Amino acid sequence: MKKPLILVTNDDGITAPGIRALISIMKEIGEVVVVAPDKPQSAMGHAITVNNTLFLEQVYIDSSDIKEFACSGTPVDCVKIAIDQIIKRKPDICVSGINHGSNSASNVIYSGTMSAAVEAGMSGEPIKKFVKQITVETLKNGLPEGVVLNVNFPKAEENNIKGIKICRQAKATWVEKFDERTNPHGKKYYWLTGTFVNHDKGEDTDEWALANGFISVVPVQYDLTAYHAVQQLNTWEL
Amino acid sequence: MKKPLILVTNDDGITAPGIRALISIMKEIGEVVVVAPDKPQSAMGHAITVNNTLFLEQVYIDSSDIKEFACSGTPVDCVKIAIDQIIKRKPDICVSGINHGSNSASNVIYSGTMSAAVEAGMSGEPIKKFVKQITVETLKNGLPEGVVLNVNFPKAEENNIKGIKICRQAKATWVEKFDERTNPHGKKYYWLTGTFVNHDKGEDTDEWALANGFISVVPVQYDLTAYHAVQQLNTWEL
Repeated sequence: MKKPLILVTNDDGITAPGIRALISIMKEIGEVVVVAPDKPQSAMGHAITVNNTLFLEQVYIDSSDIKEFACSGTPVDCVKIAIDQIIKRKPDICVSGINHGSNSASNVIYSGTMSAAVEAGMSGEPIKKFVKQITVETLKNGLPEGVVLNVNFPKAEENNIKGIKICRQAKATWVEKFDERTNPHGKKYYWLTGTFVNHDKGEDTDEWALANGFISVVPVQYDLTAYHAVQQLNTWEL
Repeated sequence: MKKPLILVTNDDGITAPGIRALISIMKEIGEVVVVAPDKPQSAMGHAITVNNTLFLEQVYIDSSDIKEFACSGTPVDCVKIAIDQIIKRKPDICVSGINHGSNSASNVIYSGTMSAAVEAGMSGEPIKKFVKQITVETLKNGLPEGVVLNVNFPKAEENNIKGIKICRQAKATWVEKFDERTNPHGKKYYWLTGTFVNHDKGEDTDEWALANGFISVVPVQYDLTAYHAVQQLNTWEL
């Protein structure tokens, strides 16, 4: 069987330990191409670079035989430029991560590319077999068009991981506070801080799974239409 | 009746003509507070500023009696800091825009705040009565929790606007191309370009409405779970 073509990217930059671990797992599954940001890009959401130029440079980090490129843009820029300029086709799967710190709402949406975003609250070795298993299953079964997997790991040792749960996104939000400071010139400035609050008591959510020692897999989509609201809106005087 | 508290923001920066028009409309409806980026923030998606400080400065642009603040962050930062530092409560409605250029995928998601993002392919006066009508109806009827309206205007004169349609998001994508150049030092760089392709033949979509002279109103949500994929994923060997 032909090896699948796997595109690897992340938010934290191409030299981050998380992506190095992810690359080593993906090399056991298929042909790997890496295009990742040349610096950390946390909290960039689904941003793309339209008002600035993008640089792309081949890099050699682990002296391995795979092609790796550092890109000056965001993770989404990386995927787009990889498809257009480097691999010249859609990859069989795009895998993004491994990012540390859960709850970071990094639902990276790559239209038309089967992909998985992996986030781990724990480190290294113990999660490898699960990342491999989920990737292999995704390649085997395929995903419905427009659907991406968001995979999160609980804070637990491998032996204590109870399994993998398919979940829905919990209704949880950040309650923001801004920390006000004054700079040496007397000007006020602010740091964003906040608390994560889970209002959702359901046991089918990603938050529940993670709190109870399960790996959460949430299928996410880029159709944002709130279909349940269409009917109500059609009764308005518009 | 007590006047509603209306928070106004945008992507294009506080001095952009679109937000100035939006402010003048909102002043006819309620008490207006403006917190908007101090510079253009296009294509920032749902980005927030976590690794940098935020500055917030009261500004006086149209010598009006309303409170206006320029913020060094993204539109989402503006809403968050407005609620935490300026208005000290959730506004009755948050309105973002008016951005020029449709199809810009600006589904701005403000958790927990009733809001509408307005984008206009046409300019100024003709759209005012519709923006006002939609805002007043939203205040009157309320929105289901977690739902935001994305409002787009067709390229047409007011007389030719056929009405307002409640729509779903079209399945349309950008097909990207990167334009390769070489800088004076011999280094390659890229500009993102692309073509917008609508694959969706449905007549209930925003793209259909706009192409046919209607104003499109799409209710969008921040629950990204692809519920239709959960059942299939539960059959995987995980």
